[in-house]
Amino acid sequence: MGTRIKGGVTAPKGFLASGIAAGIKKNKGLDLALIASEVPGPIAGLFTRNRVQAAPVLWGKQQLKGGIGQAILINSGNANAFTGREGLANAKETSRLVAEALHISPRLAFIGSTGVIGVPLPMEAIANGIPKLVAKLSRNGHQQAAKAIMTTDTRPKAIALQDRIGRHTVTVGGMAKGSGMIHPDMATMLGYITTDAVIDRATLQLALAEAARHTFNSISVDGETSTNDTVLCLANGQAGNLPIQSGTAPHTRFQSMLSEVCHHLAMEIVRDGEGATKVIEFHVEQANTEKAAKQFANTLATSPLVKTAIFGADPNWGRIVAALGRSGPPVNPGKIRITFNGIAIVEAGKGLGPEVETKIKNMMKRSTLTITVSLGQGQASFRIWTTDLTYDYVKINASYRS
Amino acid sequence: MGTRIKGGVTAPKGFLASGIAAGIKKNKGLDLALIASEVPGPIAGLFTRNRVQAAPVLWGKQQLKGGIGQAILINSGNANAFTGREGLANAKETSRLVAEALHISPRLAFIGSTGVIGVPLPMEAIANGIPKLVAKLSRNGHQQAAKAIMTTDTRPKAIALQDRIGRHTVTVGGMAKGSGMIHPDMATMLGYITTDAVIDRATLQLALAEAARHTFNSISVDGETSTNDTVLCLANGQAGNLPIQSGTAPHTRFQSMLSEVCHHLAMEIVRDGEGATKVIEFHVEQANTEKAAKQFANTLATSPLVKTAIFGADPNWGRIVAALGRSGPPVNPGKIRITFNGIAIVEAGKGLGPEVETKIKNMMKRSTLTITVSLGQGQASFRIWTTDLTYDYVKINASYRS
Repeated sequence: MGTRIKGGVTAPKGFLASGIAAGIKKNKGLDLALIASEVPGPIAGLFTRNRVQAAPVLWGKQQLKGGIGQAILINSGNANAFTGREGLANAKETSRLVAEALHISPRLAFIGSTGVIGVPLPMEAIANGIPKLVAKLSRNGHQQAAKAIMTTDTRPKAIALQDRIGRHTVTVGGMAKGSGMIHPDMATMLGYITTDAVIDRATLQLALAEAARHTFNSISVDGETSTNDTVLCLANGQAGNLPIQSGTAPHTRFQSMLSEVCHHLAMEIVRDGEGATKVIEFHVEQANTEKAAKQFANTLATSPLVKTAIFGADPNWGRIVAALGRSGPPVNPGKIRITFNGIAIVEAGKGLGPEVETKIKNMMKRSTLTITVSLGQGQASFRIWTTDLTYDYVKINASYRS
Repeated sequence: MGTRIKGGVTAPKGFLASGIAAGIKKNKGLDLALIASEVPGPIAGLFTRNRVQAAPVLWGKQQLKGGIGQAILINSGNANAFTGREGLANAKETSRLVAEALHISPRLAFIGSTGVIGVPLPMEAIANGIPKLVAKLSRNGHQQAAKAIMTTDTRPKAIALQDRIGRHTVTVGGMAKGSGMIHPDMATMLGYITTDAVIDRATLQLALAEAARHTFNSISVDGETSTNDTVLCLANGQAGNLPIQSGTAPHTRFQSMLSEVCHHLAMEIVRDGEGATKVIEFHVEQANTEKAAKQFANTLATSPLVKTAIFGADPNWGRIVAALGRSGPPVNPGKIRITFNGIAIVEAGKGLGPEVETKIKNMMKRSTLTITVSLGQGQASFRIWTTDLTYDYVKINASYRS
């Protein structure tokens, strides 16, 4: 898993970052971030599966075909989504402006946007901001950069891990934003990962997809994605290790670090869930298929009744059972077992009574909760992380644009 | 459509009702209701499609095979759901007790339950309550009955309509409960309709299904149903009209009355949505298929981001577009048109700017809102009614069992 070290995206060798207030956000907060590597390198990416894709996603997919990157500019305060041809032109122009300021090719300059949908990107603010960002690039800029990509996030999210690969020290750093009830459909999730590992583009892409599978993709629901969700991973090769190849011990060590960075960032997003007071892990096991297990887990993680009950520290397993029943796949109520943090509340389809419920109710005042549902059907399982549904969630989202 | 008259389920000839506090609810409120006809008659029914079905649903489906009914007993405070064999035995025993007290056959005595899941039905309270209910049966009992089926409802829901069919006056009455964020998956929806029309069972069943299609089923999401949802319609034939036959003018008049009764009750449920400050109609049109239109409408009606924005009187059409994008069917953003109460905010995929948004924002302070989404793809459409998502929704559902 590597050793945790200080810093975020600038922890790997040869990376610099910066963040400024460019005037895109109404509240004048930090809203423009830049990550730059001293040299270009392979870049991997994952994008939203929403049918409506923001301009930076369409443009990013096109750029990713080149497979090489050197800089990533991200703005908050405006998603450049549902902005038509003008939006796509603005995305391209942003790449060009970044490339010009850094004296690199525009195909090496990636971009990302998050914020309000349907409003044209304020190009003047961005154009004026870029030279300032470039001037401020530094090893210490990772904090400002992590802050500048925040929207409704209450805190920046960053991590760095280091491990020995062969005779070389390899570092993976990352930053992310996202707090909208965790599901990427609820707000944009952006993640940026840097590494100084020597690794080819195809291997990097597979490693990123594998890392995302049980991290970023397990705090989301398939198909329930925002217009802007993006994860990019840039590898500049400055660690000098032998190229990482699939099926080798170095690959395992690298994958482990990358997965851990993604896990940390994903959990940070959950913990910062809008208005959340609790982090909930739903673990559905003994399902017939992984697909079914995922459907059950997704239904639980999106049920307003289940999530408000948990906010109220009420172990209302009846709502859990009702949600399982409407998930789609067959359920056998008489075989269901449910535990809260390991304490059984339902066995063989029967509630275990008020005594155990009182015990669990007290325990539910804690800020983390694992609810395990055993279906008694098969071998498949799925985990998903989410939060409770609170007054503050409503408050934040009823007034977001005001 | 018929003429609105006073009264609810006892408005049709030969129906009596009553409601009492039997001690099932913790708060000692009314919790046991009885509807009884002087004579037996055909009965039609619709039940939840949830995979987990409460005992009264399982038992009701079995009884409905007989096709004849004379009495319906409904308790609130306990759903008799997820209660296993004991629950089914309790449902049957309740039928037997009602039949005994009314001196009718147990197969004529239908039952319904709503309330907390997973707790055994308090049979002693029910057994003690039934003779009292029978003693109190009267033409004026419809109000007490409508109150006794409430859970988180803030007010009883009832209606009666009357029309001439041939030389005879035919009446349709009804009562319903349900307020849980409208979707039947969120709380139980129960509806009971009485009529003195002469109509055979098969025709009655088809008429009820048709009436429910754009009423009870358009305030719900397919497959997103609670364990207890039930609609029953009992026809005692006391109006003396010629039997109503499909494809005739009398059938049209009867269908119209029945549909209007269902529409009224469905809208009452929406208006009473838990914590709701607004009733929202989402009208999706110009879709390729009705199935697709329904998927889009359902996604909009269940999107926490869309519903909190509306609570905040924010015409945040970006969230609407993002929700459309994750609904599943293809969308063409460049063809989308969106109106709020008839005022366009998006045309050909472009927002019409702050001026119109301010105008709409002011209008959104009203308690009803129709949002029409025109997709520019085809001819199919779908309407769905829902509410906003508010602080009070969270409050009610975080403390329901406490």
